[in-house]
Amino acid sequence: MKPRELSKDECISLISAAKFGRLGLSNNDLPYVIPMSYVYHDGKIFLHSRGKGKKVEYVARNPKVCFQVDAMEKGRWSSVLISGTASLSDDIETKMKMFAAFMGKDMQGHGGKQFKREDLEKMPMTIWEIKIEELTGREGIW
Amino acid sequence: MKPRELSKDECISLISAAKFGRLGLSNNDLPYVIPMSYVYHDGKIFLHSRGKGKKVEYVARNPKVCFQVDAMEKGRWSSVLISGTASLSDDIETKMKMFAAFMGKDMQGHGGKQFKREDLEKMPMTIWEIKIEELTGREGIW
Repeated sequence: MKPRELSKDECISLISAAKFGRLGLSNNDLPYVIPMSYVYHDGKIFLHSRGKGKKVEYVARNPKVCFQVDAMEKGRWSSVLISGTASLSDDIETKMKMFAAFMGKDMQGHGGKQFKREDLEKMPMTIWEIKIEELTGREGIW
Repeated sequence: MKPRELSKDECISLISAAKFGRLGLSNNDLPYVIPMSYVYHDGKIFLHSRGKGKKVEYVARNPKVCFQVDAMEKGRWSSVLISGTASLSDDIETKMKMFAAFMGKDMQGHGGKQFKREDLEKMPMTIWEIKIEELTGREGIW
């Protein structure tokens, strides 16, 4: 059976509900994919990572990213693909905004711990803000 | 807590057990990620798709791909990343080999249906063989 295109509302509904997705980067035309927790907030995708490492090095060279989120059920799959541009920041206001959104989503990341401003200031953390330029989705059967 | 590198054996064990992964392609340095069922067989990753569409178009231009497989548990994640080169084929021997491997893995794809040679010959299907050039894995906590 041919896959069906998801409407924009169905895409938003899927990315609002899920907790993990896969970030796709391209480094000199070589693809790189890693799983990440995220939150969809304010019409953007927010991720957080350490301030260094392969993905930070790759995105600094090429900020065009994709973020893929799916729901895999027995016999059926649906998947949303977001294409966009990432901007990275480690300022405290951005950290606070992202953590509030994560907590609002009941992510239970970091053991569900609540962080204070002074804790977040000390954490060596980079926030990724992905501006959505394209949003498409499909569903089908295996 | 810092993620831990997985050994090669741990990577193989994870990719042997899982049923779905995410294929990463790069099209003119733009990343593209989609979920796919797969089988790890003969030291390679086998996928199947229709003979046309975005991913077939992209891989024809750039056969350097990655395939990412993870296990997400409450509080813990592990992920394997394979980098390699894809070659596509629609010959009947390759189809038969791949379907035997899929069936051996009890994939339950296509409703668990068994296919005869004459069925496979008629199916408009492309087999992807990914030669593994790099295999790395990590595990950590959310």
